[in-house]
Amino acid sequence: MPLQSFIDVAATSHFPLQNLPYGIFSPPGGMPRVGVAIGDFVLDLSVLAEAGFLADIDTAVFTAATLNPLMALGSAAWQSVRATLQTLLRHDNPTLRDNAALRQRAFHAQRDVTMHLPAHIGDYTDFYSSREHASNVGRIFGREVPLLDNWLHLPVGYHGRASSVVVSGTPIRRPSGQVQQPGTAVPTFAPTQELDFELEMGFFVGPGNALGQPVPIAAAEAHIFGLVLVNDWSARDIQRWEYRPLGPFLAKNFATSISPWVVPLAALEPFRVPGPAQEPLPLPYLQTKQAGAFDIHLEVWLETAVMSAPTPISHSNFRHLYWNMAQQLTHHTITGCNLRPGDLLASGTISGPTPGSYGSLLELTWRGTQPIALPSGETRTFLQDGDRLTLTGWCQGDGYRVGFGEVSGVVVA
Amino acid sequence: MPLQSFIDVAATSHFPLQNLPYGIFSPPGGMPRVGVAIGDFVLDLSVLAEAGFLADIDTAVFTAATLNPLMALGSAAWQSVRATLQTLLRHDNPTLRDNAALRQRAFHAQRDVTMHLPAHIGDYTDFYSSREHASNVGRIFGREVPLLDNWLHLPVGYHGRASSVVVSGTPIRRPSGQVQQPGTAVPTFAPTQELDFELEMGFFVGPGNALGQPVPIAAAEAHIFGLVLVNDWSARDIQRWEYRPLGPFLAKNFATSISPWVVPLAALEPFRVPGPAQEPLPLPYLQTKQAGAFDIHLEVWLETAVMSAPTPISHSNFRHLYWNMAQQLTHHTITGCNLRPGDLLASGTISGPTPGSYGSLLELTWRGTQPIALPSGETRTFLQDGDRLTLTGWCQGDGYRVGFGEVSGVVVA
Repeated sequence: MPLQSFIDVAATSHFPLQNLPYGIFSPPGGMPRVGVAIGDFVLDLSVLAEAGFLADIDTAVFTAATLNPLMALGSAAWQSVRATLQTLLRHDNPTLRDNAALRQRAFHAQRDVTMHLPAHIGDYTDFYSSREHASNVGRIFGREVPLLDNWLHLPVGYHGRASSVVVSGTPIRRPSGQVQQPGTAVPTFAPTQELDFELEMGFFVGPGNALGQPVPIAAAEAHIFGLVLVNDWSARDIQRWEYRPLGPFLAKNFATSISPWVVPLAALEPFRVPGPAQEPLPLPYLQTKQAGAFDIHLEVWLETAVMSAPTPISHSNFRHLYWNMAQQLTHHTITGCNLRPGDLLASGTISGPTPGSYGSLLELTWRGTQPIALPSGETRTFLQDGDRLTLTGWCQGDGYRVGFGEVSGVVVA
Repeated sequence: MPLQSFIDVAATSHFPLQNLPYGIFSPPGGMPRVGVAIGDFVLDLSVLAEAGFLADIDTAVFTAATLNPLMALGSAAWQSVRATLQTLLRHDNPTLRDNAALRQRAFHAQRDVTMHLPAHIGDYTDFYSSREHASNVGRIFGREVPLLDNWLHLPVGYHGRASSVVVSGTPIRRPSGQVQQPGTAVPTFAPTQELDFELEMGFFVGPGNALGQPVPIAAAEAHIFGLVLVNDWSARDIQRWEYRPLGPFLAKNFATSISPWVVPLAALEPFRVPGPAQEPLPLPYLQTKQAGAFDIHLEVWLETAVMSAPTPISHSNFRHLYWNMAQQLTHHTITGCNLRPGDLLASGTISGPTPGSYGSLLELTWRGTQPIALPSGETRTFLQDGDRLTLTGWCQGDGYRVGFGEVSGVVVA
């Protein structure tokens, strides 16, 4: 039986003592501040800090409206806070457990609080690190050799839009833009008819690096604060017309949704696994000795306007990713680009090897040629107005889960 | 003869009373604050504000370390500040002219101050709006039809890296990265051998828009605070290997340099001209009634380590751009992307119609096949360590110039 907290935590809860993800929340009528999820509650770290329990760190770090100050402190500080919290929350530690007045102030029911974007995101980068996804896209668009020449040599990535990263629950307005109808020479302006999701995860950068000073791969994980679920909403018809030669732009930048709880890398240690074999061997600056993947079970759920409950449409796993986070981070800095606390680096669509594990409707319906049948009798090729799309994910421990909660959004006209 | 200030301004100065560009500077031993360039001086707006001359605006706007608060206020406030400054600085206005104590505190010699990045850049976007540049690139890389299908229908753009935008004067470290040597199957890791500049201009966004609410083109210019010179440093060999299919990434994000003085759109009004005819007609959301180009003369200067003075290597003009700033801004928001105060939208390389007006070494040397001969007897295909590359630009009025100063950087190993 895993170590327990004095807070009740169900075996299927995403937020046991082993997780303790960070988020920015506001209690009713209160200002945003730093909290940690435990079971169905949020522990208010600003209250703990002001009560002197986190004395080795400036209280302002926990009264802040973003996690950026905590991210900037680096891994020694993160370890210290995490150790303190895991001790304070233990079932057999009376310090907080038996202090009724402090407990009253420090805990809020999650259902009563508002969750915010966890960080000010200076820059958002999206990778393309699933071999299965990149290969599927190549096949769908008719390339004889699905993977491009460079794909096995470097983690392909591009800069996304930071301003339109939103927290789970934000409605997603169906974008209108230029599309080129098949068989026509000129584009038309219309609402996208190919609105898609992308199942991704992302990590927040900790201290980061100075301009011109790449992060060696052995040091890369020390710059990873924690992970969230990411839905990189995409308008495929707009993307097809605009993306050459400089990549996706308006087809992606209308919204990117992330889950509110940032799971510390330390909480994922028990679930570290080797990633896919890398052949050909990457250049030395990308070679890692350590197993760099994590066994995170991922699910995609869809609920249309007429359904009374969501239904799963895909199951995947973070461990399928060919390029790991350390490789992504080091590659990002290799020409000298500086990363800053709060930067978000996302994985790209995480597709598994089987059709039921694909991470986008583009792949699940093979560009609309194989519609998904839903329990409501409806079918879907791409998302319709009123559809709610939810990503969730967790690591399965022995009697507990380290989970990410969910990232969810409803499509509105 | 144009209206004069009581501050001496030479006819070839970039900073007459008609310009009044904003910047962030720190005087010796002082904190960064807002200033305006006039002749060889900086007028300290924090001093003017504290003395009550800018009373309709919060003083904190001028003591800030970025222009973001001023940018956020919008065009009515910008007009008010500009009108106040143009009145205060007139040769025949004794208020400031004859107040020796205030003048002493409010003016600094430009040579004595440190210039900073003018804004916190939330997101940086780079367009590709020169038809001549896009066509040259197409020809250089052997495309039969140099322009891609979409180019004449929309201003192609992509997201750049905000963290590595640096102010003029910052040394540029030659990046190392993956390149694929001709005739080899696998990449090697090496310092770039094809370091290039790109002659661009960019504009800073003012108030911006909420997520999901596009900016109509008639309202677009009200969101343009002002313009700077931009050098989008590029590593062509790294770019060639990495850019498919998601666009440039590490080949650009190691550094982007901008000039420190932001020239208000209002100062450019006398130089507004029609842009190139747009045929085919763009979709209605991109159609502008107003002339949308500006006659800004642009120059590129190169000085190698052995030269005693820089030499011009290209002359171009901002008016050559096919897509104008209003079209870029509106297009950027059309699927709902939100722009925020301080966002930077750059033009892409500004090449003119003749070989002497190309805006990159890629084009000037036709991918290295036609080296440039320098007065020192040296030649250049791409930039060498020790080379200083400087962009400058101005509008020529009748007896005065509205100029942008310069953006300059030295390449270091």
